Order: sequence, then C-alpha cells, then structure tokens
Amino acid sequence: MKPTEGRKRIVIEEIQPTVNHGRYPAKRILGDTVEVSAAIFGDGHDHVAARLHYRHASQRKWLTTNFTALPNDLWSATFTADKLGLWHFTIEAWIDHFDTWIHDLAKRLAAQADSAQDIPLALRIGATHLDAAASRARAIDAKKLILAAAQLRSLADQNLALYGDPVTPEIIALVAKYPDFSFATKHNAEFPLWVDRERARFSSWYELFPRSASPTPNQHGTLRDVAARVPEIAAMGFDVLYMPPIHPIGSAYRKGRNNSTTPEPDDVGSPWAIGNTHLGAGEGGHLDILPELGTFVDFDALVQTAQSHHIDIALDIAFQCSPDHPWVAAHPAWFSHRPDGTIQYAENPPKKYQDIYPLNFESSDWRGLWDALFGIFKFWVDHGVRIFRVDNPHTKALPFWEWCIAEVHRTAPDALFLAEAFTRPHVMYSLAKAGFSQSYTYFTWRTGKAELQEYFEEICNPPVSDFFRPNIWPNTPDILHAQFQIADLAHRRAIFQQRIILATTLSANYGIYGPAYELLEGRPAKPSPGKTSSEEYLDSEKYQLRNWNRDDPNSIAPLIQQLNRIRRENPALQRNENLHFHTTPNDNLLAYSKSDGSNTILTVVSLDPLNEQSAWLDLDLPALNLPWTGFFDVVDLLTNTVYHWKDSYNFVAVAPATTAHIFRIVRT
Amino acid sequence: MKPTEGRKRIVIEEIQPTVNHGRYPAKRILGDTVEVSAAIFGDGHDHVAARLHYRHASQRKWLTTNFTALPNDLWSATFTADKLGLWHFTIEAWIDHFDTWIHDLAKRLAAQADSAQDIPLALRIGATHLDAAASRARAIDAKKLILAAAQLRSLADQNLALYGDPVTPEIIALVAKYPDFSFATKHNAEFPLWVDRERARFSSWYELFPRSASPTPNQHGTLRDVAARVPEIAAMGFDVLYMPPIHPIGSAYRKGRNNSTTPEPDDVGSPWAIGNTHLGAGEGGHLDILPELGTFVDFDALVQTAQSHHIDIALDIAFQCSPDHPWVAAHPAWFSHRPDGTIQYAENPPKKYQDIYPLNFESSDWRGLWDALFGIFKFWVDHGVRIFRVDNPHTKALPFWEWCIAEVHRTAPDALFLAEAFTRPHVMYSLAKAGFSQSYTYFTWRTGKAELQEYFEEICNPPVSDFFRPNIWPNTPDILHAQFQIADLAHRRAIFQQRIILATTLSANYGIYGPAYELLEGRPAKPSPGKTSSEEYLDSEKYQLRNWNRDDPNSIAPLIQQLNRIRRENPALQRNENLHFHTTPNDNLLAYSKSDGSNTILTVVSLDPLNEQSAWLDLDLPALNLPWTGFFDVVDLLTNTVYHWKDSYNFVAVAPATTAHIFRIVRT
Repeated sequence: MKPTEGRKRIVIEEIQPTVNHGRYPAKRILGDTVEVSAAIFGDGHDHVAARLHYRHASQRKWLTTNFTALPNDLWSATFTADKLGLWHFTIEAWIDHFDTWIHDLAKRLAAQADSAQDIPLALRIGATHLDAAASRARAIDAKKLILAAAQLRSLADQNLALYGDPVTPEIIALVAKYPDFSFATKHNAEFPLWVDRERARFSSWYELFPRSASPTPNQHGTLRDVAARVPEIAAMGFDVLYMPPIHPIGSAYRKGRNNSTTPEPDDVGSPWAIGNTHLGAGEGGHLDILPELGTFVDFDALVQTAQSHHIDIALDIAFQCSPDHPWVAAHPAWFSHRPDGTIQYAENPPKKYQDIYPLNFESSDWRGLWDALFGIFKFWVDHGVRIFRVDNPHTKALPFWEWCIAEVHRTAPDALFLAEAFTRPHVMYSLAKAGFSQSYTYFTWRTGKAELQEYFEEICNPPVSDFFRPNIWPNTPDILHAQFQIADLAHRRAIFQQRIILATTLSANYGIYGPAYELLEGRPAKPSPGKTSSEEYLDSEKYQLRNWNRDDPNSIAPLIQQLNRIRRENPALQRNENLHFHTTPNDNLLAYSKSDGSNTILTVVSLDPLNEQSAWLDLDLPALNLPWTGFFDVVDLLTNTVYHWKDSYNFVAVAPATTAHIFRIVRT
Repeated sequence: MKPTEGRKRIVIEEIQPTVNHGRYPAKRILGDTVEVSAAIFGDGHDHVAARLHYRHASQRKWLTTNFTALPNDLWSATFTADKLGLWHFTIEAWIDHFDTWIHDLAKRLAAQADSAQDIPLALRIGATHLDAAASRARAIDAKKLILAAAQLRSLADQNLALYGDPVTPEIIALVAKYPDFSFATKHNAEFPLWVDRERARFSSWYELFPRSASPTPNQHGTLRDVAARVPEIAAMGFDVLYMPPIHPIGSAYRKGRNNSTTPEPDDVGSPWAIGNTHLGAGEGGHLDILPELGTFVDFDALVQTAQSHHIDIALDIAFQCSPDHPWVAAHPAWFSHRPDGTIQYAENPPKKYQDIYPLNFESSDWRGLWDALFGIFKFWVDHGVRIFRVDNPHTKALPFWEWCIAEVHRTAPDALFLAEAFTRPHVMYSLAKAGFSQSYTYFTWRTGKAELQEYFEEICNPPVSDFFRPNIWPNTPDILHAQFQIADLAHRRAIFQQRIILATTLSANYGIYGPAYELLEGRPAKPSPGKTSSEEYLDSEKYQLRNWNRDDPNSIAPLIQQLNRIRRENPALQRNENLHFHTTPNDNLLAYSKSDGSNTILTVVSLDPLNEQSAWLDLDLPALNLPWTGFFDVVDLLTNTVYHWKDSYNFVAVAPATTAHIFRIVRT
C-alpha cells in the first residue's frame, strides 16, 4: 500500500535520549541542557534540515529549536529543562532545497573561471526558491524576498564573464525563517523525558535508627532525639536523613535480639514488621507513628528542622504488614489465603517469616490495594516528605510502581524514590524505568579493580545512565560485607576508608548506615569460617537499641565530613556521566577522573588495606581537559599537597593509612 | 491512569531479531530455524512462562511454541521458516504459579527432615492449582487432574513424618497443557520477519557486458553470445550472471570511448544512458532491448539456458533516462524542469552528465512514477528474472523502495534485490532495512588487517546482520581500486588472488566483474602519480566493446573455479554470522574461521603481495569446535596438503604466489 504522501523522503532514527524506544521516560535534572540526537538523512545529495519539538506536559504549545549537523548523518539539538516533571519531544525533518542550491552555487562560482557554467540559470533557480519562501513569509519579509529574487534575475540577465556571490547572509537567514514543510517527515512517536530536582543526581544519605538516637544509653530514641542530631549530620555534609520505618511494630511473631524467634518481653522488634492496631490511638499501620518515637507534631517538627538545615527527611516505605496491621482485618482480600483459611506469611522454603504478611498483587481488589498504597505516599507527602526509600520494590508488581510513582509525581513532581532492590539486572533496571529516581546497586559486592571499572562503566554511561541513577552504599543495616568483618583495627579502618572514598568519588549519590559506618562496626551475627560468612550485624539495630559511642577517637567522621565537603566544592563529583577510568599497571590501584567545566578531579584509590601501593599512572590527558604534553599541577584535596606533574606518566604512591589521593587538576 | 488489568505483571523487552523495534522486518532464509529471544521477567520470585506466537502473512491462524529459559532472565524459542515471504511474531508471558509451587514443594520436601514444614498445607495448595487447571482442561484431562488433586488432599490428610514427592511428570505435563492466561502479558507489537530463498544468503555473481560477449573480435556481442558462455560460467562455479542494462541507449550527448564527450559515429555509448525512442520497434525504454543485443525471444532463451545451469540472470535496474527515453515526452512531470523550460540533467557541479536525466521523486505525479517504476520490475519478473541489481538506489526515495520491493514480493517472494549503493553508512543500512536483499559494501576500500576485521565484525553480527547482507566485490566496472593498478604481473596477480580469496571466504555473497577480473585487468583511465589515481578503467566497457583473451595463460580463472568449488563443498562458507577472527602477531596475516555444524574452515590470507609472511597463529579453538588442548589435522583445500597441528599455537607461512591457506579442520 502506497503511503498517502510519497514525497516525505526523510528517515529519522537512533533518537537519544530514549528508553525502550520511548516506552519509558529518559531522566534529566532541572536546569539541564538536554541534548537530543538522532540520525537524520534522506536519499541522494539534497541537504537536510530538522527541528526539535518539545514541551512540558503542562503546556499545550510545542516549542521548537533547530538541529545542527554532526558527522555521519547525526544531528543534535538542545533545550533547557527549566521545569520539573514530564516533558515530551519529537523530531521533524525535511529536504532543504534552498540550502542545497546555495552549496551548489558556491561550487559553480568557484569553478566558473575554469569552464563555462550555467550560473545565470542557477541564479534563476535560486530566484524561484526565494519566491517560494516569500509565499510562506510574513508580508514584511515577503517583500524583501521578492526583491532579492528580482535581484538574482537581474544579475542573471547580465550574462557576466565572472560572477560574485549574490547571496547575502541576510537572505539566507530570511529564507531559513520560512522553511518548506510541505514534505517534512515528523517522527510518529513523542518521546517522554522526566525532569527531577538536583538532589536526584547529587545526594549524600545518612541512615540512622531513631530507636538508638537517644543520648541516654538504653533509652528508646525519639523523633525529637533525631531532630537534635540534625545539626551534626548537616555539619558532616549530608543532605538526606533516612530513617527505617517509623510505624507501630507488630506483636505477633515479633523478633527478638539477633533475630531470635523467642523474644524477651521488652524486645522492640523489627521496624519492618509494620502495623499494630493494639498500640496507640492511631490506625496503627503505615499512616501511624510508633508511640515510642513520638507524635505527628514531633515528626512535622523534625521535617522542619531538617529543612532548615537543607536536609531532606527520607522515609522507608515497606509495603508489607505484620499480622497485627489494621489491613489484615479490614482488607483480607489484599493478602493470599491458604486452604486452611490462614493468611500466607512470607516464606522462602525452608525459611519462614511469620511476622510478615506480603501483599497480594493478584488480589481481586487490586484497584483498592493500589489506591491504599498510593495513599501512604500521599499521606507522608502531605507531611512534607519528598524522598522515599522503598523497601524491596522488586517484590511488588512493576505496573503498580509505574502508576503509583506517576500518580505521586502528578502533585509532587519534586518527590524522589530510591529503589532498595538487590536482584537480577533486568528487574533492577525495570524498576528504574518504571520511575524510581535512584537505585541501590551491586557496588557492595564489587571489590576488585576490573569488576569495579566494568560495573561503573555500565551504570554511568548510556543507555543505562539515561534511566538508572546509582546510589551506592558501602554498608546498610542488612549488609555488612565480609570485607568489613576484620578484627584488626588498622586494617578495618583502611577498608572503611577505602570503601567510602570509592563511594563518594565514583558516584554522585551515595549513602551510609551510621553511626555503624563511621564507628567501623564490623562484627557479624555469625562469624563463619570460609566463604559463607553472614552479612548480618551482631546486635543489629533491626532488632534492638544500640548505644553508639560517637566520641570514639577511631571514628572516621572527620574523613566523611572532609569527603562531603570535597563533593560540595567540586561540581565534577556531582554527576556521573563524566566518569572516566585511567590506566595504571598496578591491579591494586584504581584511577578515575570526573570533570565539570573547568573543574576536574582525579581519584587514585588503593584497594590494598595492608601495604603501600605505587604505580606510574598512564593518564588520558584529554579526559582531564589537558593537552597531551606539558606541565600541570595537582592538589591532593585530602592533604592539600601540591604535586608538579608532566605529560601522561606520573608516579603515585598510596599508603594504607591514607587509602587514596583525590587530586584537583590545576593548569599551570 | 490505572491500567485496565493491574495484575498483568510481566515485562517483555530486548526482543530479537528485530530491526528498529519492529519498524522493518528482520531477514532470514527459507528453512532457517529462527531463534526468537527476549528478556522476560516479573516482580518477585514467581516463576515465569512464555510462548511465541508466529504466523506466515498468508495464514490467519497464529502458531505457538514455548520459550525456554536462558540465564539472566533471557528466554529463547524457535520455529522453522518453512515458507518464503513475510512472517510475524510476538510474545506472550505469564506467571506460572504451578511451576513456582512445584519448586517450593521440592525445597520443602528436601528440608522436611530438619524441621517441621507445612507440607500438608503445601499439598492442599497444589490441589487448588490442579483444580484450577482442570477447570481449563478438556473433559478427559480434567478428570485426571481432579483425581490428582484428590490424591494430593488424601496424602495431606495422612500427616506423615516424612513425605515422598507426589507430583509425577505426567501431572506436570498435564498442567502445562492448560496454562492460566488470565493475567498473561502479550507484547503489543507484532514483529515482522522476511524469509528469502537461499541464494539471498549464498551466491556467487559473475558480471559481464553482453556487448563484449561475441567470440568474433570487434563484433557487437548479443544475448545469444551470452547464452553460449553460460556453460563455461556455470563450470567456473557461478550461480548469478549479471548484465549491465540491456535497453536501448540514448543518442543525445552519447559518451564516446573513455568517457569522451566527442564520440565517433560508431561509438556504442553507455548502457546506463537508458532509452531511445528512435531505435527499434519497441517502446525504446526500460521495457525494451537494445536491437544490437537481440530480441525478447533471445532474452527468454538466455533465461532458460541459465536456469538449466542453475544460474539466475540478474538484470541491472537503473532508474534514470537518456534525453531520448520515451518518458521524457510522455511524462514530463517525472523530471525536474529548469526556469528556461529545459529538463535538469544529472550534475555534481562543476561536473555535468547531460546524457542522463534523473527522475524527480518530488514529482506532483509521484504516484504515476512509482507505478511505472514498479512496472519495470514486474515486466522483467514476467520474463523470468528474479534477481535485480539496482543502480544507485540511494538517489531514489527510501519510502519508494520500501513500497516497491514489497509490491514485487507480493507476487514474487523469490525476487532478490542487490543495492548498488556506495554512500554513507546510515543510507546503506536504510536501503537494506527498506527491503534490499543484498548490499554492496565498503570492502573494495578496506585493505588493511585491522580495518578488514573491524568492518566484517560490524556487518556479520547483529544488529547489522539481521537486515544487511553484504555482497562483496573486489572490482566493478566503476571501481578499479588503486591496489590493482600495478604494472608488474606477479605483484598484480598476487593482489588479484588475495582479494578474491578474501571475498570468497569472508562473505557468503560475492561477485566479480569479468573477464576483467580473471584476466587481471589493472590499467586505469588516468594513471596519476600520488594519491588521486582514478578508479576508472582504461578502455572501459562502459563506453566501448572489448576483446578479452580468455585463453591468456595468466588468467586466474582456474583459481576462481577452485574457490567456488570450495565454497559449494563447505557449508561453513555459505553463511556469515559464523565468522570469527583469530589472533596472529603478524599484521600482514589475517586469520578467520567459519563453521557450520561439523564443517569448519580456517582461512589465513597474506595481505603482502611481495614477500613471504609467516606467524604463529593463536587459535581460538572452541570457535573451531575443538577442545583447548590436543592434536588435530588441517587440510589446505588449495593444495590438498595435510598439516598435523596441536593446541592453539601453530605455525603458518604464506608465499605471495599462493596468497593464502584455506584449511578445513579435521578431528583426529
């Protein structure tokens, strides 16, 4: 079947940034210059022109901007994403006969001395292009174009031996104002683009258990205690304060200390066993606060205190229920039932988690369930929360996330969602595509040089970086990696330093679970010989209060403060797509740089916690915005030492005590 | 907005083979086992199942076959493409609760000795799955399923200390017959797949000018002369005989010998200046035959002779007209007109090609033009032609090709189209996507080891190989590469041997312009010192008859015959996606293998026409279907010499006179 218009001759393909061919939005940050690129070409030698159509979802009118040609039929156009939320763009392209003519004329004029050319005829052809442009132009411009056409014809009449170039930049600009869209090809898809606030790209998270926030040992911490700690956390340089669930904790099958199934009467239980209708005056579920932590007044005050320190409060949203959750009685259809009438608890046979009822996303009342889950986000958004760390999102239906996050974003486009999924790559990436703003990663288990480089090259470059923003965590309450489970203090301290330096310099988003991290907590629940050591902490705060000695002289809080300050002072460390690895012959030294405009940071990290490591770096100088030869200085921002370097090969040595150099490049 | 069914929890993406996300068909060959792969996954730990829907365009009913799981959430399904033409496929996937239950049960049964598990309850859950399957089953199967469910419940009632596995393979197979599609996700696109006959993948082309086919020197050759040569061409091993345009040649601005613009009266002109109403009794255009070549009776006889030798006649279709073409008067709207009323001839300022009028694809009568161009293919299809070499397709509108090729394929799905485009990569690839079965390549200008390897890795692997089939030509009537322009016979002969060995072993489709190739024709039109040598031949057949001395003792026709025989006898050389390069430390030796089942060919080509080259090959033995260690034999198919080799490292030496080894691997 013939197309309705066979004269549309342009192909538009390889459009970027797109995710699954436009099925999901690509992600950018407020204020970004968004570069849209595509392969745009037609048959033959006719010149092509193209424009980008783009608009924010709240605007009906499309804006346009022209593409410029890159080599190999690729084109690029940019616009500024100056509003949060959903944007769309598409591409229109057409044959630019006037531009083809201009370039042909130039060749004819250049050749006219050698051979008789049909220049008068070419001028008359140009005049017809100007006439055509005039027919599309506003009256004032049309007059000028018609005059210019007449001048071309008059010149043609003169039959000169040698012609000058009669086409002025003014004429070219005037014609360009009125392109001929008669046979323009418009791409049939409108590609979505989601624009987040800057904290989606650059954030430093501090996780703490409010239950341990009291200055008084063995006393249950409160939201007021957390508020009291905010100035210190802000001073350390963090901008997100994230708390595990703050809701009432179930009594049924409550877990005791160290995950015991035979708890003591005073055991506080796991904050992830959410819901207890028997406690407090509230509804007792996800819309309520554990009485020991305080009241909504306390919570709102905490949010305000945090805001005054430019800190976001991040809540942990875990969509699961304890057997005491109000939904168990009110909405039995939201759970799976077994043939004996009981509700199916969480299981990974032979393991049982009888304190947790998963929600059933195949519920006949899935609509009601979706609304209720959305209602939880909405409730806390109304209490001023704009960041949610979502627990195990990969065990909830992906279509639900896509709908729910869009629904929250409809009224709170500044809301950010961190996906706590440690699962297979496709599922991790699909959660990000479905709308999660940031994602946990495999960083925790990437410890070797080659695997670190390979992984960060994957997640910091398109196509992944267009939808997946890594937030990397050296530790979490669930994951004490075997690397940290070291008795020797100096050795352990070197590893804690190494991992947070990697985290803060490799990724613009990172977080730690404190005070465990700065206090070098490394005791596992089950120190097992061989390969199968537990990643659970001994005396985990998940099941009990902890008294943290924040005055411990071994605390690496000062280093963390320094790293956060370096991140704030150096824009290069506030983005990821600029990450570039450099060659070192030493497998224990990882070298990489990031640049942002004139700011360039080169980090060299030792992966060996025990011995000094040294090497001649083989720097890719253009990646450092330096010429291939010449002198330059580097300042180690950890020690304020200046080194005078030359060309690509430069020597570095890293002692276990210092773990790394973080160099700022200084042109000399 | 919520979806209408929120319980469809599966994601299906990364579907292969697809081209531009289904915008264009992927290509396969009749009889191929088509493997469709995709990433298919849901949330959580529930097991997934999927099936492929596929059908030939002529069938209304979809066929289905199940996917099997590969690592990392990838899945694969296959079907046999047992009919030429257009196919479609799509994917449906669902949560397989019964399969999830089976695996959970196995874990419970394995753990039952250690701890009391809810096995009776699990059995009752299984019984509900069987009941559900029964409700979807045919009566005879439903009975068996209901019985099996009762057996599970009866077993559960017994409350044993230790349970055996009650689920038989028969029950599993029975349930698998009736999957629960209630919440199945079906991909919303139907992906097209085009199936060609085998010659699209494996073909050996011989191009000759009929005008020079006469055995009598200086006498204009005829189609009968060509027919007389068919047995010899078949004996050389070619299966496509391709002729430049055979239509009447224009008189206006006719080109003389060596592209002279001042022809002699007896000059025959260029076959690409198509159309002359003043000649013969026919219409004088693309639907006519140059009287000097003969009649339609002769043409039909030639096609029949070729068929009897299993040779396809390929016609050159050049959509352009001489000023004497009948369309110039009959369809002035199909050409561009200049302001002085004249028709625009072909130009690349300052060069003029006044003997050629291009067609105007922006004609107001583009519909009429498209019909007429399609009519040319249809006309020759009706004369038994099934292969068309299309001249300069990149200067005709891409949407036209997509329509026209599909239109020809509607009644002649065995028709093949070779795109003679030497232009930018995106345009080359878009022509293949639009429907061309085979494509000319940059091979002619890839002479170094690294660039040969890089180029063939690009065009022999997905995504390119799914739509683009290279047909590689060491020479054409338009391109005598500088490499061949060598006066010294031994040197020139070595280069001609090297290039045809590369062509025949790197690519399943290749062609030569003969007899120029086998007779080592290397004289350029303008032997220029320095870098800007012409690629035109001296005394080119494009403008005159040539007398070829096919009895020349220096002819490499015997080598070509040997190469074509090796290609026919070794299936490995009849496909491209199996190409694998092996490491040699010598930059003048290129080593690569191809495999098909048990047939494996390893080719080692010297790129140095002057000196012997040798090296220790570092073979990737698994790519040769060999274990990493051990003895094996290789037979050089050019010399029938057997070598006894061991492990990866083996020594080879190649003299300029032999140019290459073509080894067949023999397991010992």
